[in-house]
Amino acid sequence: MAVYTDVAAEDLAQFLKGYDIGELLSYKGIAEGVENSNFLLHTSAGSFILTLYEKRVAVDDLPYFLSLMAHLAARGVHCPQPEKNRKGEVYSTLVGRPAAIINFLEGMWPRRPNVTHCAGVGEALARMHLAGRDFPLVRENPLSVAGWRPLFDRAAPRADEVQQGLRDFLARELAYLEANWPGSLPVGVIHADLFPDNVFFLGDKVSGLIDFPFACNDILAYDVAICLNAWCFEPDHSFNVTKARALLNAYGRARKLSEAEEAALPLLARGAALRFLLTRLVDFLNVPPGALVKPKDPLEYVRKLRFHQSVKSVGDYGIAHSGQMA
Amino acid sequence: MAVYTDVAAEDLAQFLKGYDIGELLSYKGIAEGVENSNFLLHTSAGSFILTLYEKRVAVDDLPYFLSLMAHLAARGVHCPQPEKNRKGEVYSTLVGRPAAIINFLEGMWPRRPNVTHCAGVGEALARMHLAGRDFPLVRENPLSVAGWRPLFDRAAPRADEVQQGLRDFLARELAYLEANWPGSLPVGVIHADLFPDNVFFLGDKVSGLIDFPFACNDILAYDVAICLNAWCFEPDHSFNVTKARALLNAYGRARKLSEAEEAALPLLARGAALRFLLTRLVDFLNVPPGALVKPKDPLEYVRKLRFHQSVKSVGDYGIAHSGQMA
Repeated sequence: MAVYTDVAAEDLAQFLKGYDIGELLSYKGIAEGVENSNFLLHTSAGSFILTLYEKRVAVDDLPYFLSLMAHLAARGVHCPQPEKNRKGEVYSTLVGRPAAIINFLEGMWPRRPNVTHCAGVGEALARMHLAGRDFPLVRENPLSVAGWRPLFDRAAPRADEVQQGLRDFLARELAYLEANWPGSLPVGVIHADLFPDNVFFLGDKVSGLIDFPFACNDILAYDVAICLNAWCFEPDHSFNVTKARALLNAYGRARKLSEAEEAALPLLARGAALRFLLTRLVDFLNVPPGALVKPKDPLEYVRKLRFHQSVKSVGDYGIAHSGQMA
Repeated sequence: MAVYTDVAAEDLAQFLKGYDIGELLSYKGIAEGVENSNFLLHTSAGSFILTLYEKRVAVDDLPYFLSLMAHLAARGVHCPQPEKNRKGEVYSTLVGRPAAIINFLEGMWPRRPNVTHCAGVGEALARMHLAGRDFPLVRENPLSVAGWRPLFDRAAPRADEVQQGLRDFLARELAYLEANWPGSLPVGVIHADLFPDNVFFLGDKVSGLIDFPFACNDILAYDVAICLNAWCFEPDHSFNVTKARALLNAYGRARKLSEAEEAALPLLARGAALRFLLTRLVDFLNVPPGALVKPKDPLEYVRKLRFHQSVKSVGDYGIAHSGQMA
């Protein structure tokens, strides 16, 4: 939520001469994204987002997610498309940083998601999974089960400062998930970070999915589990089964979950909760002095994880088991 | 340079029902303004800026500067105009804060102002002064000469931490300016903060003046002196007389400076330099922990002030005295 790098108007106008997107009329640094500098551009051809990738983003991954957005958009998924410059590149260099321009999507993300929003995101996620089936590039998920132990090792020594007993709780859960993580579920391109601030709506309709830097190849149903965590808990941390049912049923109408996927969902939801718990905990314990960004509360995900531990089957998420009536 | 207050899409859509500016399509927090929260809105009717006024802004002054923008725009000055809601109000309440909507001005502020930009701002400033002549409201300038001693008193005890001898330097200059500040120069509405980031250009042409929260009634030539400080020094702190000449000549073509105004310009420029030196020094010495905004360097204005102390007459700013050939 900050602009780290300013761009001079003269330099930006020069940069845009490499594109066929009209004359620059204005640009504003926007308060979105915690790792990059983002600008909303108005040109004579329309509105665009310019992103300068700051140091924490691996340039090696830019081709993957910029190509993915183009691939998905070409298959009808409402997501930003990277603009190619006159050399055909989807990114080049501005102010010494990798820089890309994407088209601007109208829409607002829901600060208070309701059941209709949850159904919308469920359907959009399934359609994204289907559209990604023939995407040729592959990126392993650095934050899947194999990536959690290094995070645990960083956070463990001071975890009990945040909550007494947290270290043991995390150790047990991590060992359990490492031993039981499913190995044969359908995989494909997942968004991996489809929180409400990454889904735009116009009225009740999804108008776009944004922010793909965590996109990767992993278990499709794990993406569903991330959404259950991100969309279906209330501010008081209670689980809203009506929202979960809406999300899962809408997903299932576009891409039916197999019996194996449904059976694994509680375990995948535990994994998704642990993944966000660990990254938030590491961030929380390592806030740099003078940081611009307030760290998110890791304990929110302790409560979500405990909920999923208590789940007996997918029926607790509000949907009937495969073979039963929905 | 921060969004302090977020607005829920649902609340903003509700707020906009009070206006006749179309359906909300998107809004982004923008990284502009250090004391308010600003959002760029896209609606079916165009682009707008929504400002939420945070606590440091005196609500009592909102009618002055919102009315002023409407007054100036009606007289051909390119500046934002406040949108009235269906009740005819130019501001009301959103998220518990005074909130106003202005139309969006295209244009870019020059990060590296050149001579043409300086001429542009000179002419635009004069036209603003002329357009403000019949503005009926009055707001005293809290940061004119009478406002400087309280700032000095806050900064003085620790001024020498910033530069050895700074306290005595400021005390002598303040006493001199208090004793010699002119009392009979033409007054009117001044912008009082017309730095490069508040002047938009499209190509070589001024497309808009923005950001009026410091606007007030004061000596018109003092506004010119502020611009000399803000536009005519190079990054190495040297004074660029070519830029000053361009600025003053362009101003003079639209509104001729009187002999008395020209004679007072070096003194007014010292005052303008002291005003920004003092506010920057107070900010510099009082950075709150975890501040989002890096304080500006007060010593830049020590150097500018010393330059103006060395000026013998307006001729040193690059223009001939009144009565001589320009």
